[in-house]
Amino acid sequence: MTKVIETTFHVRYAETDASGVVYHANYLVWFEHGRGEWFWQQERDYHRDVEARGLNWPVVEVSARYLAPARYGELVTVRTWFKEMQSRAFTIGYEIVNAETKQVLCTGWTKHLNVNNEGRVVAIPDDLRAMMAE
Amino acid sequence: MTKVIETTFHVRYAETDASGVVYHANYLVWFEHGRGEWFWQQERDYHRDVEARGLNWPVVEVSARYLAPARYGELVTVRTWFKEMQSRAFTIGYEIVNAETKQVLCTGWTKHLNVNNEGRVVAIPDDLRAMMAE
Amino acid sequence: MTKVIETTFHVRYAETDASGVVYHANYLVWFEHGRGEWFWQQERDYHRDVEARGLNWPVVEVSARYLAPARYGELVTVRTWFKEMQSRAFTIGYEIVNAETKQVLCTGWTKHLNVNNEGRVVAIPDDLRAMMAE
Amino acid sequence: MTKVIETTFHVRYAETDASGVVYHANYLVWFEHGRGEWFWQQERDYHRDVEARGLNWPVVEVSARYLAPARYGELVTVRTWFKEMQSRAFTIGYEIVNAETKQVLCTGWTKHLNVNNEGRVVAIPDDLRAMMAE
Repeated sequence: MTKVIETTFHVRYAETDASGVVYHANYLVWFEHGRGEWFWQQERDYHRDVEARGLNWPVVEVSARYLAPARYGELVTVRTWFKEMQSRAFTIGYEIVNAETKQVLCTGWTKHLNVNNEGRVVAIPDDLRAMMAE
Repeated sequence: MTKVIETTFHVRYAETDASGVVYHANYLVWFEHGRGEWFWQQERDYHRDVEARGLNWPVVEVSARYLAPARYGELVTVRTWFKEMQSRAFTIGYEIVNAETKQVLCTGWTKHLNVNNEGRVVAIPDDLRAMMAE
Repeated sequence: MTKVIETTFHVRYAETDASGVVYHANYLVWFEHGRGEWFWQQERDYHRDVEARGLNWPVVEVSARYLAPARYGELVTVRTWFKEMQSRAFTIGYEIVNAETKQVLCTGWTKHLNVNNEGRVVAIPDDLRAMMAE
Repeated sequence: MTKVIETTFHVRYAETDASGVVYHANYLVWFEHGRGEWFWQQERDYHRDVEARGLNWPVVEVSARYLAPARYGELVTVRTWFKEMQSRAFTIGYEIVNAETKQVLCTGWTKHLNVNNEGRVVAIPDDLRAMMAE
């Protein structure tokens, strides 16, 4: 397992639903936020360092388990790490916890392909691969 | 006032919030859905007929009044019409009602500019203008 | 496999992202829309028939595979069915296709528990179980 | 004008749309985030200090002007202040800027009523009024 990047933020009202807790699909948005932070906290940016050089990392598979609910205003922490590397694909792992109680709310992973602008799945460039393996 | 296009759909759980009713920002998404239907019900499409010819209609101003709440599963009707035309801008009006009780839930409008791919505000082409004025 | 309920709608602009296609988390919202239609098309409603009698069906696990992208304005069809039943839990299956080309865009499932208002996982009432098994 | 609370965060991919920039309705979510921060930065919380004592502050009117786009990964700052007070209603003002260039992206306001659990519009309690006027 590579290093784990953490980011903490408040739950928005927009993210809750009529059952009083965070709507399940929004945890996938928080996974994406975690991926973004993985770049940002290392002075990188997905758009600049991946998209702008003609690559895309579309999500081709997602899995999430919901263990406990989150409510409006609560602080949640997203932990993000590179979980598995292949030559042209990789899997990112996530754990979302209540930042105060440390209770685990959700765990999951997303699988991504490394796709070029012609839509072909290609080998991940060495520098990006090295970055992920740190 | 031009003709009014109507579209009716069920409220999604994703659109509600912890207060038990539809989150206010989602009415703007429904306004956009109404604009889309305005095209679709006339065998047109915003992407094909506007974007694909090098134009964009960004929202530059929005106003909405919330009169009554909508709840999960309710049928809502969005009414959409062209409200005001200028040479390079236009305003679209909306009314959202409960499809069963006919109670008005929300009224509003969006102002759009006609922008080309260089980001310049340009005159609306005559055929699009005619379409809007129908 | 039980009967399959289908619902078809246009992709909203709000559902797309900067890569030009539908944002992956929104397929989970479409899964939920499919579950809602499962009720609505049978003159039932999740709120009235489940929540209002003191039960909740939270999503405890989700899995989705993304096979092809959807774009603004396209018509997509969500197919929903009850995939597996246990005494206090069940799994719903989904397939999302482009309504015109019939290309499969996404497949997935959600697992739900039958929870009462005290937060306890309890047996699914017989009438609801019969409804699911139809 | 009362004090201005600022909060800064990165644009999520989920918040962008197929035109490549942030979808206009998401600025209303950022307004809400700004309102939340107004509480959080003062050791308060909307749920605990308003909802839990039997009050709600629904949005009854919103207005927004969009001046420049925001893109994925950019840092944006939301500035929030109490703009106008009435005995049973109030208006909150917002300004959203690019945190690096300081360019103003969006300005707007939301009008709220002070509603009790029976749905009646009632006078804002003195302590909440004092808090807003700080």
